[in-house]
Amino acid sequence: MAILVTGGAGYIGSHTVLALLERGDDVVVIDNLSNSSKASLDRVAELTGKVPTLYVADILDKHALKEIFSNHEISDVIHFAGLKSVGESVRKPLEYYENNVVGTLVLLNEMLLAGVDSLIFSSSATVYGNPEKVPLSEECQTGGTTNPYGTSKLMVEQILRDFSHAQPEFRITCLRYFNPVGAHPSGRIGEDPNGIPNNLVPYISQVAIGKLECLSVYGNDYPTPDGTGVRDYIHVLDLASGHLAALDHKAEGSAFKAINLGTGVGYSVIDLIKAFEKAAQTQINYKIVDRRPGDVAECWSDSSLAKQKLGWQATRSLDEMMRDTWNWQKNNPNGFSS
Amino acid sequence: MAILVTGGAGYIGSHTVLALLERGDDVVVIDNLSNSSKASLDRVAELTGKVPTLYVADILDKHALKEIFSNHEISDVIHFAGLKSVGESVRKPLEYYENNVVGTLVLLNEMLLAGVDSLIFSSSATVYGNPEKVPLSEECQTGGTTNPYGTSKLMVEQILRDFSHAQPEFRITCLRYFNPVGAHPSGRIGEDPNGIPNNLVPYISQVAIGKLECLSVYGNDYPTPDGTGVRDYIHVLDLASGHLAALDHKAEGSAFKAINLGTGVGYSVIDLIKAFEKAAQTQINYKIVDRRPGDVAECWSDSSLAKQKLGWQATRSLDEMMRDTWNWQKNNPNGFSS
Repeated sequence: MAILVTGGAGYIGSHTVLALLERGDDVVVIDNLSNSSKASLDRVAELTGKVPTLYVADILDKHALKEIFSNHEISDVIHFAGLKSVGESVRKPLEYYENNVVGTLVLLNEMLLAGVDSLIFSSSATVYGNPEKVPLSEECQTGGTTNPYGTSKLMVEQILRDFSHAQPEFRITCLRYFNPVGAHPSGRIGEDPNGIPNNLVPYISQVAIGKLECLSVYGNDYPTPDGTGVRDYIHVLDLASGHLAALDHKAEGSAFKAINLGTGVGYSVIDLIKAFEKAAQTQINYKIVDRRPGDVAECWSDSSLAKQKLGWQATRSLDEMMRDTWNWQKNNPNGFSS
Repeated sequence: MAILVTGGAGYIGSHTVLALLERGDDVVVIDNLSNSSKASLDRVAELTGKVPTLYVADILDKHALKEIFSNHEISDVIHFAGLKSVGESVRKPLEYYENNVVGTLVLLNEMLLAGVDSLIFSSSATVYGNPEKVPLSEECQTGGTTNPYGTSKLMVEQILRDFSHAQPEFRITCLRYFNPVGAHPSGRIGEDPNGIPNNLVPYISQVAIGKLECLSVYGNDYPTPDGTGVRDYIHVLDLASGHLAALDHKAEGSAFKAINLGTGVGYSVIDLIKAFEKAAQTQINYKIVDRRPGDVAECWSDSSLAKQKLGWQATRSLDEMMRDTWNWQKNNPNGFSS
């Protein structure tokens, strides 16, 4: 039996494929390489000595999925494939709904036809919209998402919940990620954003290496210890191990689960800059600018449900997150194309 | 220029096509006839002396849409096509999300490609979930839908709102219907449900004609004047004229509108039974049974926004709704197949 990983050549996907191969699972990847690189999987193979089977195809391509389900005995699907840029989603909502929502519908249909009934879905803390409180627990209201990316993640969760009622044999876990950062300690795989990074840590990292000039910090007058926004950053290897834990515990409890994956600890932008400066032994050029509309002061997870249901918790520190990010960045100044 | 009506052979669709033809609009219909009959459009042609162009095709079929947009100069699309049974949606959620959500995405993509930028969407008061108050105004919170049918309508509204931000040249109106009943006074077109009706008035009507034995009234201990549930029933011809008003006022105000179509008046189940008995000059056999989970005591619309934005209001009374329903039923005991 093999595990099918959609979007397995991407950032979180490739680290999860690595973790699966390391523990001896067979892995099949489907990825259209639109926002990822085959090189990530070559390096996973180099690190693990095992080669995941790659299908270069789109999740919307039902024929490709049929072929995969027919060629391989798939026990579980981990579904990462999707578009993920908030700003782009505002400009191109149809593409986001098409890739993220329709893509999942196509996948579910093919899983039904193939009799594969275990799914782990790559969701996001964005489904909570503006946090009603911190820490955010799974009991908090979802909804009020502020962009098509977030709304598409919420729609997929809703579809999966309804689907699970209609198909009680399915085991479905939605993992709501907080802010994934870091890289494999080898420096061989990591986050490789297209163009100018949307996320803080890749941005800091490209300032450190000299590709970008200056980091803009959006507001230092929030009601937080140092005035900058506070978020829950989680090492990508902790995220990867969260997926393995979700596989191991899929049969327990209810058929549909939604579980936070975070550390339960919030760090500010200034905390991150300082930790990165320590890791990279350099100074990060930054300036304080106006708050961004829609940003909240602070957001971190209540991560107790993951501990209780999956026996999982994040173990890697902020220093490790920054050390591994920098190690990846300095060894791969141009990502996988270097 | 013609108006494209998706699902134009259905219940509300056919009455709207009739109203459009009567006022001189050219009409093109796309309908897969999965839950409707070509006979409805033949009768519309007989009533109006004008023939709408029918494409028997699915809204998911982008090639059919391309053909329509290439063969006709379309000014506006009225989008009725979709699945509409609450109970079925619980059993077959993927079909509902596919037809209702993906169908709309396919339509929007083809409208974009064809440069057609005016859309009226067939939404529903179900997007409000459990009413937070009555009357329900458009200011009320949406969400908390309790079945895939309702969730699919809400998702389409969310997609249309996001799409409208990205494509500000589009004019989009979501019309949130309350409870459509009645038929054309000619008795030639009306509601023709597959199998046992899900809705109250067709059910009463089939009891009256002797096709069904007894109406179950779900609860008579609600906090309403007679203890039975209260809803806002609206004559289908009033709904049809609401669509014409939405077309006429599309260019006014914001690019995205969501507007209730209801009468603003609530009637109880017992009110409906009595009005039907008067219209049909017969007695309706009914029994009181337990409440149904999920039903609310009362729900009716605040219909002032439609008056303000569209210059529209419902004008037909409960007696007319029941008279026209009965006239349709007795002349067509087996619907269009009779």
